[in-house]
Amino acid sequence: MSLFDESFSIKSLKKMLTKHDKPYLDVELSDKSGNVKAKIWNDALDKYEDSTEGDIVEVTATVENYNDNLQLRISSLKKTNEYNLSDYQAVSARDIESMVEQVNQAIESTKNKFLQKLLKNVFTKDFLKDFSESSASYRIHHAYKAGLIEHVTEMLVMADSILVRYPKMNSDLLRAGILLHDIGKIKEYQTNTSITISTQGKLLGHIFMGAEYVKAQAPKDMPELLLDEILHLVLSHHGQLEYGSPILPKTPEAITLAALDNSSAKINSSYMAIHETDSDDEFTVYYRHLGTELYRSPYMDSLTNEDVPF
Amino acid sequence: MSLFDESFSIKSLKKMLTKHDKPYLDVELSDKSGNVKAKIWNDALDKYEDSTEGDIVEVTATVENYNDNLQLRISSLKKTNEYNLSDYQAVSARDIESMVEQVNQAIESTKNKFLQKLLKNVFTKDFLKDFSESSASYRIHHAYKAGLIEHVTEMLVMADSILVRYPKMNSDLLRAGILLHDIGKIKEYQTNTSITISTQGKLLGHIFMGAEYVKAQAPKDMPELLLDEILHLVLSHHGQLEYGSPILPKTPEAITLAALDNSSAKINSSYMAIHETDSDDEFTVYYRHLGTELYRSPYMDSLTNEDVPF
Amino acid sequence: MSLFDESFSIKSLKKMLTKHDKPYLDVELSDKSGNVKAKIWNDALDKYEDSTEGDIVEVTATVENYNDNLQLRISSLKKTNEYNLSDYQAVSARDIESMVEQVNQAIESTKNKFLQKLLKNVFTKDFLKDFSESSASYRIHHAYKAGLIEHVTEMLVMADSILVRYPKMNSDLLRAGILLHDIGKIKEYQTNTSITISTQGKLLGHIFMGAEYVKAQAPKDMPELLLDEILHLVLSHHGQLEYGSPILPKTPEAITLAALDNSSAKINSSYMAIHETDSDDEFTVYYRHLGTELYRSPYMDSLTNEDVPF
Amino acid sequence: MSLFDESFSIKSLKKMLTKHDKPYLDVELSDKSGNVKAKIWNDALDKYEDSTEGDIVEVTATVENYNDNLQLRISSLKKTNEYNLSDYQAVSARDIESMVEQVNQAIESTKNKFLQKLLKNVFTKDFLKDFSESSASYRIHHAYKAGLIEHVTEMLVMADSILVRYPKMNSDLLRAGILLHDIGKIKEYQTNTSITISTQGKLLGHIFMGAEYVKAQAPKDMPELLLDEILHLVLSHHGQLEYGSPILPKTPEAITLAALDNSSAKINSSYMAIHETDSDDEFTVYYRHLGTELYRSPYMDSLTNEDVPF
Amino acid sequence: MSLFDESFSIKSLKKMLTKHDKPYLDVELSDKSGNVKAKIWNDALDKYEDSTEGDIVEVTATVENYNDNLQLRISSLKKTNEYNLSDYQAVSARDIESMVEQVNQAIESTKNKFLQKLLKNVFTKDFLKDFSESSASYRIHHAYKAGLIEHVTEMLVMADSILVRYPKMNSDLLRAGILLHDIGKIKEYQTNTSITISTQGKLLGHIFMGAEYVKAQAPKDMPELLLDEILHLVLSHHGQLEYGSPILPKTPEAITLAALDNSSAKINSSYMAIHETDSDDEFTVYYRHLGTELYRSPYMDSLTNEDVPF
Amino acid sequence: MSLFDESFSIKSLKKMLTKHDKPYLDVELSDKSGNVKAKIWNDALDKYEDSTEGDIVEVTATVENYNDNLQLRISSLKKTNEYNLSDYQAVSARDIESMVEQVNQAIESTKNKFLQKLLKNVFTKDFLKDFSESSASYRIHHAYKAGLIEHVTEMLVMADSILVRYPKMNSDLLRAGILLHDIGKIKEYQTNTSITISTQGKLLGHIFMGAEYVKAQAPKDMPELLLDEILHLVLSHHGQLEYGSPILPKTPEAITLAALDNSSAKINSSYMAIHETDSDDEFTVYYRHLGTELYRSPYMDSLTNEDVPF
Repeated sequence: MSLFDESFSIKSLKKMLTKHDKPYLDVELSDKSGNVKAKIWNDALDKYEDSTEGDIVEVTATVENYNDNLQLRISSLKKTNEYNLSDYQAVSARDIESMVEQVNQAIESTKNKFLQKLLKNVFTKDFLKDFSESSASYRIHHAYKAGLIEHVTEMLVMADSILVRYPKMNSDLLRAGILLHDIGKIKEYQTNTSITISTQGKLLGHIFMGAEYVKAQAPKDMPELLLDEILHLVLSHHGQLEYGSPILPKTPEAITLAALDNSSAKINSSYMAIHETDSDDEFTVYYRHLGTELYRSPYMDSLTNEDVPF
Repeated sequence: MSLFDESFSIKSLKKMLTKHDKPYLDVELSDKSGNVKAKIWNDALDKYEDSTEGDIVEVTATVENYNDNLQLRISSLKKTNEYNLSDYQAVSARDIESMVEQVNQAIESTKNKFLQKLLKNVFTKDFLKDFSESSASYRIHHAYKAGLIEHVTEMLVMADSILVRYPKMNSDLLRAGILLHDIGKIKEYQTNTSITISTQGKLLGHIFMGAEYVKAQAPKDMPELLLDEILHLVLSHHGQLEYGSPILPKTPEAITLAALDNSSAKINSSYMAIHETDSDDEFTVYYRHLGTELYRSPYMDSLTNEDVPF
Repeated sequence: MSLFDESFSIKSLKKMLTKHDKPYLDVELSDKSGNVKAKIWNDALDKYEDSTEGDIVEVTATVENYNDNLQLRISSLKKTNEYNLSDYQAVSARDIESMVEQVNQAIESTKNKFLQKLLKNVFTKDFLKDFSESSASYRIHHAYKAGLIEHVTEMLVMADSILVRYPKMNSDLLRAGILLHDIGKIKEYQTNTSITISTQGKLLGHIFMGAEYVKAQAPKDMPELLLDEILHLVLSHHGQLEYGSPILPKTPEAITLAALDNSSAKINSSYMAIHETDSDDEFTVYYRHLGTELYRSPYMDSLTNEDVPF
Repeated sequence: MSLFDESFSIKSLKKMLTKHDKPYLDVELSDKSGNVKAKIWNDALDKYEDSTEGDIVEVTATVENYNDNLQLRISSLKKTNEYNLSDYQAVSARDIESMVEQVNQAIESTKNKFLQKLLKNVFTKDFLKDFSESSASYRIHHAYKAGLIEHVTEMLVMADSILVRYPKMNSDLLRAGILLHDIGKIKEYQTNTSITISTQGKLLGHIFMGAEYVKAQAPKDMPELLLDEILHLVLSHHGQLEYGSPILPKTPEAITLAALDNSSAKINSSYMAIHETDSDDEFTVYYRHLGTELYRSPYMDSLTNEDVPF
Repeated sequence: MSLFDESFSIKSLKKMLTKHDKPYLDVELSDKSGNVKAKIWNDALDKYEDSTEGDIVEVTATVENYNDNLQLRISSLKKTNEYNLSDYQAVSARDIESMVEQVNQAIESTKNKFLQKLLKNVFTKDFLKDFSESSASYRIHHAYKAGLIEHVTEMLVMADSILVRYPKMNSDLLRAGILLHDIGKIKEYQTNTSITISTQGKLLGHIFMGAEYVKAQAPKDMPELLLDEILHLVLSHHGQLEYGSPILPKTPEAITLAALDNSSAKINSSYMAIHETDSDDEFTVYYRHLGTELYRSPYMDSLTNEDVPF
Repeated sequence: MSLFDESFSIKSLKKMLTKHDKPYLDVELSDKSGNVKAKIWNDALDKYEDSTEGDIVEVTATVENYNDNLQLRISSLKKTNEYNLSDYQAVSARDIESMVEQVNQAIESTKNKFLQKLLKNVFTKDFLKDFSESSASYRIHHAYKAGLIEHVTEMLVMADSILVRYPKMNSDLLRAGILLHDIGKIKEYQTNTSITISTQGKLLGHIFMGAEYVKAQAPKDMPELLLDEILHLVLSHHGQLEYGSPILPKTPEAITLAALDNSSAKINSSYMAIHETDSDDEFTVYYRHLGTELYRSPYMDSLTNEDVPF
């Protein structure tokens, strides 16, 4: 089995040495449908023409099977500049424009003037563009372009159903917390032809980066306690210390934010897992973050319209 | 400090012996505002006129303080039959009739005929009466009369916000799962003048009791796999083995049900904790099930109408 | 190295697509000595003649080594109907007839008439046949044909040694609990040419399936509390919530049942691990369920008769 | 309520200072039926006549109730030398002589000459006397005089039922392991008028003390590997690192020993918990080491003879 | 037993209502030797003259014993302004001046100009004053005035011993990390007449507060990666997610910082626990953060000079 | 890619059977730079000339890549006796003589005569030779020849910095504990051409073996309590039960010893991980014992002298 001049984006590319000092390249390629690992051995290294991560390349290779996963032994790899970016990256099935509109509406309807000012300071036009293109995670949930804004607007919809039942909850705080809780991910993940984690993201994490940015953008006259509450929402949103929140949620709004974040992530990740491979098997493989395999039930879809996103 | 002829319900009453064989009574009394422990020592035993758990009694006692909690030393305890039940039990602040109506509507709108028949078999008129009066837990969340139906209808509202965003989810399965997931609690908890756990509840737990009841009420011609899926929803709804689910959720609907159950319980429990004592302190005591104390923020309420339930 | 027309049973067979849409088959074959993975690549697919799981097939293949495990690249696979089933399945080394006799004797010697009636309702002739052929688990302990009845009769023998020392223990309850605790496994596992887990087993688990069946078979006039106690034994027999029991053992009989179940499983699994590979190494590989590797001591066997099962 | 000249043994006695430097005594008294805490305040100190731990004393006191436990305020405490030791210590209900006989028989029937010699070196006449009087734990299981030998002989009986079903298991190793596994407890616990833990026991633990003693008593010509295996049995018998075994069980005999130790302890502790208070309540208090409360079932006893020990 | 006009500082003071709406005060008093709880009941409330937390008061009270702890029933409480602060607060036994000098020396000897500038921006004269007076924790370790600087300079001394053995380690990064890692505690704890935790400290935690302050004080031209490394040191210094670090240490310097922080805290906490009560008992009470009781060994002190601090 | 007559030491060599009874050899080879796995298949077995573990062999092989690791398919393997041992084993970069001197000095400076005698009994000339050549672990930290003495002398240096700040700590106990805590490793690990774990090491563990040896070497007239304290130091030095210490540290010296052991191991392991592969990648692979990947910072080295060991 072999490939001839098929195109991929380069997700990662590392120069390696064998134990006996022969150079080779360890490469991960990706297209819209997923990732595949590849090797460029010594004798093919001259076919490697200075491509780097993020490049779109045309590959000629033979297909090998390691450990039930395919791997390519590349004989030729050529960078190309003629391509359609949308062929190489997964992207939200929802309309990005209308999700941006939802975000703007949530900001406009904020009654507390300090919170609204803070939100406007953060969500500038440029910021909102980055925000609307970022992934919400590396792999687990909403892990595609515009996944972050999909996740956030999903939580805004859920929040309405909570506020209907708990009308004494501070809706301004809850909605501002939802909008701001994951903004650190814009710097943590780089969502280009594939999703990667930045060095800064690995050293600092999105929770600190987000909270620090919120503090830096706060209006000078904002009451300190109000700012502390919104920072508390960002810092505690993972809900448990072992999930990376340095502080546990201590207000109804913080507990609600953590519950909605968890619900949105879990539900989305269940569909990502079920659709990850085009398999007809009843059960998926075991997923560690879910603690189980998932069931592809015949009752799974209540609709017949295949164009509807999950 | 002393009480003279104040009335309580008896939450529990145990005959005890001191180490040196003197009989005494260990009593827990409750009214709408909470519980208080009491002792009837040897010399007052003749004032004890065969009252039992659930009775409403008039008490004369002196107040003592043990370990920062008040305790009564009872000198007289008389059963009374002239009382208003609502003075002794906490009850949902929501209108029970309209919550019953929500449940009926959810049943009527079920499109799958087998699921609808199953729901109608379960939710008979008598069952629905018990269902609408039960508490949802012993202490943690929705722990008051009609707490169970409040919890379930709250989840139905949240479910709508999920279904809007995940239209391929099987709405019949999700809603039937919400209606059925906690029905075992009707037999697990006894919600009279106070909330107690039944012997059967302690030996079997509401998860088994509920799933077994669902299976017993299933229409004879219901497809076995469809029944298995609805049983899977009931069995897995605690989301983790260590929380008492014998099986982990393996479908998007089961993962969603567990997430909504957890969200509703956590949010409600945060308000119960904050309001448990009439204190003006900034922070509550430490709650083990939350892993922290809670903060009584000045920004906690966004409304001024004190009549709105939380 | 290659195989020519060697016969196996098909443990599983999945249609797969490569990332580039070429069909291939992922197969697991087994014989009495264990399992081996195999692939049927594109160019050999026409040699695949509609065999399915459970079939006995003759295979021609080349042997490859992936990750220290052998894997077959199949060039031909033919279904056969002429075979001896016992060549393909592992089976208990104990006499099945005499184990069935032990079960019947335990039922007959039950003094409590309700428990005895319940046991007779469950252990009908047909049921006992299935019961005597089932495996006790997928892989860990007593994982072979008639493993379940071997496990249960082993626990009956151990129970006698407990009852000798704790004569106040309710022997009827303990023995009935032993007989019934794992009956859900008959539907959870399918023990044919190889051991598989049913869809129902994955969605509901043997603990619920067993307890529900016990309740359904209970005599109508059985005292409710006695039935609850026997259900409690079935539900709590894994001993810990994180092992899938929805309720913790709360009676001496339930605590004893969980201890005997654990002891029998652990001891048997130690021998299965030690004998799993025909190796002369001092230590086995690391077993996650034991948390360690095992030692093949020269003092391991105190007998020289190799015909005695472990 | 008050006591006049009732006698107890002193379980512990500590000289304390109040925050403002007044001396007082913190005392724990015990008799056969249990323990009670007491205080000797400043004004009664002159009534304290140099009694120490282990003394039998006559006490005059008033009874107070702290935190649902009784506590004595002692006004007079006098040492007495006229008493019957058996009134002050709980003791096994089994015949000690016949249990000693069981131990001797197990030693005599050991076929391996090195193991038998080792056992004889350890179980000298003096050692066997201490062994037959020691408790098996401070509080949890077999926590009474002769509890250790009761626990060990109980495991010997259970071992027979395992060896019947696993005849290849090395019976000499298993039985020697059972006899030796807890011998460190003789120095860890002091079982006099009450059970206490020695300083050495707290610093070293019975697992090290026992294994070290076994090594010191080994015959000089014993094969090193055989000694290592018996040491391995002692060191690994708690079955898990977090229970204080420095090494996990790695042989079938070690896994069996840990399972029997756990079974015997759990079963005995269930009866100790149920009988700890003379209560008619359906459920006991919550026990942390069991993770639950226990149920006092009406089906608990299958015998009517109240003289039979549990 | 009673107190007459003894003086304390008020650690906390809460207005409470009994279940039956009588007001009372829950008070915690402290002096140099520790804390004591107290109640002011209804009939003594008029003796309460608007004192608040931090005040020094003269108290007349009777002493009661609840649960082995003393508690005061206050009959009179008067604020006083004539007192010596050092009588009410515990303080480091080391010379504060020379510890400040150590800090300054560490800053001066920093070779990297960006790190030195950052340190000078942070450690202004005013900041250094607060820094040198703060406690290092609420209760566990170095929990006294100047405990924070004692902890930090202790770590600087230990760092030298690491750098001697690992000369390739970046000493500037390590020392700067030590100086900065706990600066958030200045705002988290308030070290006046007693140690309290601020509202901001409970909502944000010292790890975020410290890291955010470091980022805000960074020189504008500092390389971003160098700043990220120093922020990484602050964020990861608790060493584990469940201890509240949002990120795990990923550099040798970060791993070293977490190890030194843990070592200094553990060693100091062992002495605090041993000296907490003036008891001659061999063993202290059980400490949850150490997982054990501690031993007051006769070999504990190798010096005879009682003036040397631990 | 292929190797021709390159030399390695044999780390392990196992005779295996394929599922179809063909013999083959599973081999692990090592040289100073690390390990590589290899297979000798059926057709090359005659080239295998009775080499065993520890032999130095010359190998001809083709290089294959399994799962991102290289593996050799050996066509010829010949034992050789002409080699330089230092080419095959990793060794500490520190001067062994001077580390031995440090150990001797610590022994000589011990003031307590019993402890000094004990140390001299243990550290005989022969023992010290073994001690100075042993590795401190199998893989994690100081995992090379003379790694144990490097680890111990590193801890002695750190101890000085603790003793400066905690002058009341018993320096004799702490230093003796450091010298003795890991002596069981001399028998647990075999540090020849590669590091292996002995059968005794796997069955007993170095903690028991070390403590037992200390007890056996104690002077006859040593006070029992002093010996118990030094044994407590050895037994508790892993600091937590789940790390294999049968007892938790209960003295300041034991808590300090555990903290220093952990610090030295963690710091050294961070450098071992970073240098394990000759990669220029920013981040290493994920290390389970550290819970994370590590960062190869450009600020990692503050020195330019490449000859300085880490």
